[in-house]
Amino acid sequence: MQSSHSQFVLQIRVYLEDTDAQGVVYNASYFRFMERARTELLRARGFDHAEFRDEHNANFVLARIEARFVAPSQLSDILYVGAQVTEIRGARMTFAQSVRKHEPTGALVCEGTAEVACMDINTQKPKRFPRQLISEWV
Amino acid sequence: MQSSHSQFVLQIRVYLEDTDAQGVVYNASYFRFMERARTELLRARGFDHAEFRDEHNANFVLARIEARFVAPSQLSDILYVGAQVTEIRGARMTFAQSVRKHEPTGALVCEGTAEVACMDINTQKPKRFPRQLISEWV
Amino acid sequence: MQSSHSQFVLQIRVYLEDTDAQGVVYNASYFRFMERARTELLRARGFDHAEFRDEHNANFVLARIEARFVAPSQLSDILYVGAQVTEIRGARMTFAQSVRKHEPTGALVCEGTAEVACMDINTQKPKRFPRQLISEWV
Amino acid sequence: MQSSHSQFVLQIRVYLEDTDAQGVVYNASYFRFMERARTELLRARGFDHAEFRDEHNANFVLARIEARFVAPSQLSDILYVGAQVTEIRGARMTFAQSVRKHEPTGALVCEGTAEVACMDINTQKPKRFPRQLISEWV
Repeated sequence: MQSSHSQFVLQIRVYLEDTDAQGVVYNASYFRFMERARTELLRARGFDHAEFRDEHNANFVLARIEARFVAPSQLSDILYVGAQVTEIRGARMTFAQSVRKHEPTGALVCEGTAEVACMDINTQKPKRFPRQLISEWV
Repeated sequence: MQSSHSQFVLQIRVYLEDTDAQGVVYNASYFRFMERARTELLRARGFDHAEFRDEHNANFVLARIEARFVAPSQLSDILYVGAQVTEIRGARMTFAQSVRKHEPTGALVCEGTAEVACMDINTQKPKRFPRQLISEWV
Repeated sequence: MQSSHSQFVLQIRVYLEDTDAQGVVYNASYFRFMERARTELLRARGFDHAEFRDEHNANFVLARIEARFVAPSQLSDILYVGAQVTEIRGARMTFAQSVRKHEPTGALVCEGTAEVACMDINTQKPKRFPRQLISEWV
Repeated sequence: MQSSHSQFVLQIRVYLEDTDAQGVVYNASYFRFMERARTELLRARGFDHAEFRDEHNANFVLARIEARFVAPSQLSDILYVGAQVTEIRGARMTFAQSVRKHEPTGALVCEGTAEVACMDINTQKPKRFPRQLISEWV
């Protein structure tokens, strides 16, 4: 097991596409935002999804997610979407995630936990994360 | 607390819009599917979101969701998205949800639990579900 | 050049996911709806996207689209999305499309024209539609 | 009639959410991207959608769009989405739009024209753009 305490925060503008007729950000939009933050956290560590796929013949696939919606956010809001790797074990990587508004330490909008699996493209079976990637996090 | 054991199942076709470059249904799409099933379950009981909003000045808002992705689904698949109310307590309604493929009792793709809150539009505070709606479920 | 005058109409329910904070269906949602109708029109003629890809090593790719938004539609509306092949020429198939609300001949919400190209997956070059498919339309 | 020749270019990263099972960016995603660029162009001129709505009781609504898809773009690509106001006439504002990849003057992915109308929220009728906004463009 490896852990990393550095949190990555991605700034996102809320556009019309992200909202719904209740006048707030639509719930599934937060899952898109959370994945963008995970993707950028990995990119900041040198791992691009498309390159990873071509090199390792494997994909990062969401295996489990849990989110709690605490307060709404609205059109034109600036959101700060956090992603932090809390555990890597075998073929499974766990992220703590949060969405805050107006400023990086602003009001909590949503928080959750995402577990991502490394899946072999041919076998569609879990595959241990490459040692090189894990060593980045310890 | 009230409970209902009747499950509602919505049949959904997977379109290009629902998939991603990994060749499978994109994770956030399942949250859209699950909400469609909750919406149709409520409609089957006589509750339409838009009418409910106009009549009770309240919205159904997702408060918490948890989902486990078990197997992928693909373009052109027929999915069976289940929703079942398992509990109503104050301003909170809990749904058990599942996504199966090819047939209603087919392979499990995803399963989860969604908690929906009834929120007053003006105060943005939780509001007990109307007695009329609860009585539908007991 | 071949033409077909039979129109396919797909009934679609407007869900929260399709709307935006202006309280109406979000503009890009109509492009998703129009593609669903094209897909179902093709399926009704025996052509499934996934099967077509596997068999012909080619994809249907949107090459050009034009849409005029005439009236808004809202949460819970039933929409009737029409698709009609108006021309097939080489690697290009043209569809006339429309979105009406409440009933198949109801108020016009949106109308447009979509040109879809048949693209070889390996070469990423246009490829004539299979004779078999064209003959379906004449 | 007023015209402006300054083009606004928004840089966008392609995420999994934007792609489809054909391995490329899904067609409706480009309409989301084009609207983000129009929104940021307006914001750069001091007009925020949410503020505009609250102040003028009017929304910017897409009235017509036309797009030509020239080349595909893929997961992890950086796109440069251009928006330029080419005409303002009464309640109608016209934008020339383009999507290029890898660099601001890179290969053309998509180009189009969008016409946006200013709609009064209460009457749902077109409303002349505020003089203040028009004067920003001349």
